[in-house]
Amino acid sequence: MNRLFHVPLSPFCRKVRLSLAEKRIEVELVEERYWEQDPDFLRRNPAAKVPVLKMNGKMMAESGAICEYLEEKYPDPSLMPRDADGRYEVRRLVAWFDDKFHHEVTSKLLYERVNKKVTGQGYPDSTNVKAGARAIKYHLDYMNWLLEHRRWLAGDVMTLADFAAASHLSALDYISDVDWNRSETVKDWYAKIKSRPAFRSILADQIPGFVPPQHYSDLDF
Amino acid sequence: MNRLFHVPLSPFCRKVRLSLAEKRIEVELVEERYWEQDPDFLRRNPAAKVPVLKMNGKMMAESGAICEYLEEKYPDPSLMPRDADGRYEVRRLVAWFDDKFHHEVTSKLLYERVNKKVTGQGYPDSTNVKAGARAIKYHLDYMNWLLEHRRWLAGDVMTLADFAAASHLSALDYISDVDWNRSETVKDWYAKIKSRPAFRSILADQIPGFVPPQHYSDLDF
Repeated sequence: MNRLFHVPLSPFCRKVRLSLAEKRIEVELVEERYWEQDPDFLRRNPAAKVPVLKMNGKMMAESGAICEYLEEKYPDPSLMPRDADGRYEVRRLVAWFDDKFHHEVTSKLLYERVNKKVTGQGYPDSTNVKAGARAIKYHLDYMNWLLEHRRWLAGDVMTLADFAAASHLSALDYISDVDWNRSETVKDWYAKIKSRPAFRSILADQIPGFVPPQHYSDLDF
Repeated sequence: MNRLFHVPLSPFCRKVRLSLAEKRIEVELVEERYWEQDPDFLRRNPAAKVPVLKMNGKMMAESGAICEYLEEKYPDPSLMPRDADGRYEVRRLVAWFDDKFHHEVTSKLLYERVNKKVTGQGYPDSTNVKAGARAIKYHLDYMNWLLEHRRWLAGDVMTLADFAAASHLSALDYISDVDWNRSETVKDWYAKIKSRPAFRSILADQIPGFVPPQHYSDLDF
């Protein structure tokens, strides 16, 4: 059986979960308290991060490398365009969300509010929370701009770029940190992606001590 | 003419420069003081980071996405294996260096010692410098372990993983922050990669106010 070692609100884990589900690859989810640095876990991944995917006896780390691997091994349905220019745009946007958005928004909101509490690192730093709340607005505006020119973030078809973005936003939505009123266009895009069967497991996540807002799992939010 | 907007010691820029040079793609190097947020530059790349590659009229950002694009458009000579497992390993290691090594070492040594001074952000934080100096040892040991099992970092052939690693190490070597005595195996690997024609432009870099050690550009260091 394939196994994904993960934490439920990690956007990097969610991106891999979405890829696996979209490609209908069954996987057992195993919650990993990676911050406890269990020796067994470190053996699975010396980088000491989640996600780690165990698949066909192979142990894999790094969400970007895993998603590209899944795309090459299980190309149907595809989450990448065929042409080099289209693929460049997908990878650029995946990096945008996993690097820039992660640094400016996710780490400043989700990590301050949730990860610090879960891993016993104390209270949120309000300077960070404020910076994250300010930054997410610009990112939603950028997404709005992209989606006014394209059906999906990277072009005409749904790709890994949409999954990367939706992974960060869904985790932030769990803690009510996304103002969906900012852009009808972005909200419509999220409603579309949220209604995919691949999204179900993510909408069913429950993190002890954190109750999601009612609209979190509501497809008509 | 192709143009690469870069800063000389940026490992992300160096990785792209190495890929371009290895594939014999000519490019004009343009130094970009990205931290000054010049509006022209922000138009080229809303993420406000280097490298930015202008190629055939197309403007590209994100070093990982650029290198994959170059690999797909100019596959000869190749910097990626053909099989999905081999490609996974390359991408895992590129992420290892560009994410983990960058966070634990490069940002703690190079950014403290050089970037802070160049961008007028004051003096190095000695706690960070100490943490970086400690962390690089473990990374050199990990490379040593890999290279005892493989000719190159990701396998039998030289790949983007070697370029990612060499980009970080060469930038750190410029400020004498690599202890090459720690592993003869890693030193041999670096001597091999350093002697490639693609490396020449990197060894010729001169950063005002920072004099590299004599061995920096010496092929028999």
